[in-house]
Amino acid sequence: MADEVLFEFLHMEIMSYVCEEPITREDTEKVRGTGLSTLEGMGFRVGQGLIERFTKDSPTFKDDLDIMKFLCKEFWSSIFRKQIDNLRTNHQGTYVLQDNKFSLLTSISSGKQHLEEAPKYLAYSCGLLRGALSTLGLESVVTADVSLMPSCKFQIVIQKV
Amino acid sequence: MADEVLFEFLHMEIMSYVCEEPITREDTEKVRGTGLSTLEGMGFRVGQGLIERFTKDSPTFKDDLDIMKFLCKEFWSSIFRKQIDNLRTNHQGTYVLQDNKFSLLTSISSGKQHLEEAPKYLAYSCGLLRGALSTLGLESVVTADVSLMPSCKFQIVIQKV
Repeated sequence: MADEVLFEFLHMEIMSYVCEEPITREDTEKVRGTGLSTLEGMGFRVGQGLIERFTKDSPTFKDDLDIMKFLCKEFWSSIFRKQIDNLRTNHQGTYVLQDNKFSLLTSISSGKQHLEEAPKYLAYSCGLLRGALSTLGLESVVTADVSLMPSCKFQIVIQKV
Repeated sequence: MADEVLFEFLHMEIMSYVCEEPITREDTEKVRGTGLSTLEGMGFRVGQGLIERFTKDSPTFKDDLDIMKFLCKEFWSSIFRKQIDNLRTNHQGTYVLQDNKFSLLTSISSGKQHLEEAPKYLAYSCGLLRGALSTLGLESVVTADVSLMPSCKFQIVIQKV
């Protein structure tokens, strides 16, 4: 079984490769956007693959909330070795998943330092959630928000079709 | 703890991203070479990080062969969930590590089909070995060779300094 840092080290490598420093200042925004969406896309495909494995022996889910609970517990702890700490919903298709100590952020910093770096540490994981939901039949928009590292919130808005 | 496929899925994503299809035929060789060396470099840095964690409580090694045995057993099985099947050496600084069922190859094919695709599935792992050896004080050249998938051989040549 892989040592727990294997995934984190590999994630770090991809992140720096995909989000390479832009050459000119004008490129900054463009490169940043493309890099984040590439990472999100990788996460999406990995999330699809993982959830297929994780749910192959699971009973079907009762409703959307039941799916979210599965993601917060089994799915999250298989990847990040801890559960989501808090799950909230407005019961209208919006869910907020809070991780008080998100493992991909603990390596960089605590507090408010390097806060502007946070998005690239989160894009892949937003993709993981969106990919998992997509395989379970829910199209969604997933964003992440950090105000004090290493805590972060993932907001999921289910798209009604 | 991460599910065993997490690493494999993520590796697959990086591989396809880094070794994107070239646009023109003339680009093929150039793109292939750059992609492989990028993957090898990522593996190198991850290998350095991993071996540091793995050996922090280990006794020091007697000699180079002792290091190789550690890589074949503990190091390899932490990453790929099985040991190297066969270790050979000419006792002059060359080592051949054979894995009869290398996990990153089992996903693509058995036999001789897709053999030309094999190098990009192996570059990252060559880097892992070279990185680990480098942190343990041994500079090396690591290459991989596949004649019948999913079996493969890693050849390590220690560089005397």
